[in-house]
Amino acid sequence: MNVEIVAVGTELLLGQIADTNGQWLGEQLAAAGVDSYFHQAVGDNQRRIVTALSTALARGDAVITCGGLGPTQDDITREAIAEVMRVSLVRDGELARRIEQFFSARGRTMPESNLRQADVPEGAAVIDQRRGTAPGLICPIGRKVVYALPGVPDEMAEMFERAVLPDLKRRMAEAGERGVIQSRVLRTWGVSESALAEALQGQIDALDARPGAGGRAGTVTIAFLASGIEGLKVRLTARADDSAAARSLLDAEEREVRKVLDAAFGDIVFGVDDVSMEQAVATLLVERGLTLGVAESLTGGLVASRLVDVPGASTWLRGGVVAYDSNVKFSVLGLREGPVVTDEAAVAMAQGACRVLRAAVGLGITGVAGPDPREGLAPGTVFVGLALGDGATAARRLRLSGDRQRIRQFSAISALDLLRRTLRTPAHGSEGPTLG
Amino acid sequence: MNVEIVAVGTELLLGQIADTNGQWLGEQLAAAGVDSYFHQAVGDNQRRIVTALSTALARGDAVITCGGLGPTQDDITREAIAEVMRVSLVRDGELARRIEQFFSARGRTMPESNLRQADVPEGAAVIDQRRGTAPGLICPIGRKVVYALPGVPDEMAEMFERAVLPDLKRRMAEAGERGVIQSRVLRTWGVSESALAEALQGQIDALDARPGAGGRAGTVTIAFLASGIEGLKVRLTARADDSAAARSLLDAEEREVRKVLDAAFGDIVFGVDDVSMEQAVATLLVERGLTLGVAESLTGGLVASRLVDVPGASTWLRGGVVAYDSNVKFSVLGLREGPVVTDEAAVAMAQGACRVLRAAVGLGITGVAGPDPREGLAPGTVFVGLALGDGATAARRLRLSGDRQRIRQFSAISALDLLRRTLRTPAHGSEGPTLG
Repeated sequence: MNVEIVAVGTELLLGQIADTNGQWLGEQLAAAGVDSYFHQAVGDNQRRIVTALSTALARGDAVITCGGLGPTQDDITREAIAEVMRVSLVRDGELARRIEQFFSARGRTMPESNLRQADVPEGAAVIDQRRGTAPGLICPIGRKVVYALPGVPDEMAEMFERAVLPDLKRRMAEAGERGVIQSRVLRTWGVSESALAEALQGQIDALDARPGAGGRAGTVTIAFLASGIEGLKVRLTARADDSAAARSLLDAEEREVRKVLDAAFGDIVFGVDDVSMEQAVATLLVERGLTLGVAESLTGGLVASRLVDVPGASTWLRGGVVAYDSNVKFSVLGLREGPVVTDEAAVAMAQGACRVLRAAVGLGITGVAGPDPREGLAPGTVFVGLALGDGATAARRLRLSGDRQRIRQFSAISALDLLRRTLRTPAHGSEGPTLG
Repeated sequence: MNVEIVAVGTELLLGQIADTNGQWLGEQLAAAGVDSYFHQAVGDNQRRIVTALSTALARGDAVITCGGLGPTQDDITREAIAEVMRVSLVRDGELARRIEQFFSARGRTMPESNLRQADVPEGAAVIDQRRGTAPGLICPIGRKVVYALPGVPDEMAEMFERAVLPDLKRRMAEAGERGVIQSRVLRTWGVSESALAEALQGQIDALDARPGAGGRAGTVTIAFLASGIEGLKVRLTARADDSAAARSLLDAEEREVRKVLDAAFGDIVFGVDDVSMEQAVATLLVERGLTLGVAESLTGGLVASRLVDVPGASTWLRGGVVAYDSNVKFSVLGLREGPVVTDEAAVAMAQGACRVLRAAVGLGITGVAGPDPREGLAPGTVFVGLALGDGATAARRLRLSGDRQRIRQFSAISALDLLRRTLRTPAHGSEGPTLG
């Protein structure tokens, strides 16, 4: 059984809103073990909705539409489905009565156009509305089916869970299908996507060679996703008969992948699933009872602003100094006058942050965002410095590529990663893995 | 000319990430007057990418793919396009050399798999990479064309603007498509979307009543788009025979809209098109030869990090203090011990920023991001303070709604807007329009 999602609405094509309904439905289908190979978005145009539906029905077993069920003239999903089914729309008296009641219960006069929502393609079943006025539809077409849901996210989600998913499961059971798909994401920082892939190639080949690989149950796949400041993600996806079996496959595979990555690159996995780099740093600081102060030059407050997004940041984050102008580095952070793009300057910024902000740990970031060189250094040259309460310091030089914004973002995650690695070493400080 | 967008990546189907590339491209195509009737998303599966491409080419004139150009085994957009073109992939020696250089310039060993990125379908032209390693492709198929772009958003956007859009425009001109669609965006801050729409309703009705409204040439439409920290956008879109005619329609309409907004709300238009709030502030600071220092509490560096993104910020931005912990407000910024979420505290933070950072103008932001109240104040209560070189100060209390992140973002743009409005008044300072 494979299901295509067709999102209806000109505003999607114009980029005025993101297709969050398609994203949510994709997630739900995957979690339920239902395959979905294609998504489409189409505007409020009957001929083109018919094209999209016909395309989807030709390459799949079922289609879920969202949007275009409202009361206005540009809501024409009902008409398009009737055309694909080659039937007429008939007004459902019971539905019409309920829509009228919806308005009268709220003391409002119903605009006549709302009765369009009581029009149903002949042969379709109605999914009751519990939140608004647009009913959903289950429209059989031969052995296939089109489910029509409203575009309002919470109405769509409620109807999907109550009516569409059970109907899909019944159809899958009739077809003799079962199973779930679950994913787990290992977030990494420090090596390129191709290096990760190369290190894990043996693992991927081993998975491909297992009996049943590519089949339905008991298989795992590995994929990679570069995600900027969120790190480079390694995604493990398991198919199994039920969720416990999927979880156990993922546990086993995660152990293997971690073993390979650890042997090849050391400590590059900073988080699992939703755990961001800043969350990982926060957890370590809280465990060790340490406070943090940040001194930023080229990142201009980006590191601090990501740290404050971590819930509970007020218990360990003292604050930051954005020393964009060199004079601020001298007067506020106490750097000696001289070059400010060096590893010594980064460490001095970190020490200044500790002192000025009265923090146990200081993080300093200085470098060249570009487009012009500075102090004879090319854009992308960045120094990160660390100062720890015990007087220990660490520094690292980075060579980043890209435009100003990318250099800033990679500087921010790299700086936090240096802090994370250092805090993870038993005698955090001078023996850390990343001394400059 | 109509263009279909095909986003490639299993993670899109699984709902693990939103298709922000498709959304961005949709927006760009609309702004350029290029029709786009369908979007598709498809997983990392060659047979299905071929199906998606064939479907798109059958119903459109051009296709833009994003994703699947990376170095790993699941990056197979190149192979799928070659199959649709019925040609082979050939390794481009020059490209291979550049990819090797990309790694050696960074002192890294290139994994062999990276050379897959130098494989090009016969007959395709290469779009150089300027940020990463995956080149883009322009692949003619009869009179139609497939543009292949990487999935990394900033690489995709840069290539679209530099290579795809100009090529599309050239094809449209060759096809004799006259008629352009041009848009102009007035960015506003300070009133709600519904208030804007209500104020401009008369203007919208007048446009609808004009001869030719809804037709192709000589018409203008108005739309609204809430864009978070980018402000609330009023988009004017003109259809005309050529760009001079479109521009003149937009000029006339902009004058009318500004007149209405000015009469209803005062100075709420802070920028046109790409001019962000921070750019507007920067322009005023440069005009007046002033330097700026920022003191941030709940925004945690967000204001400073946006300011450093303005080209040339180093001439007017001294830096910032992120006083997340109250003690930093006392010890670094010199606030008297006591409540720190008041208008006096915001002004004192601004004065502290001037003194500590040796800046002519100081901006202070304090407030409650939530979820819990603080000092008896509800989440969303925010104070912005200003200190000007002549001793004048200003403050404003905001009541914002939403989650922590939204409250922070709205605080940041509101703070910059207070600074902008104050700098725009002739005797900037105590006679400003926004004194608390």
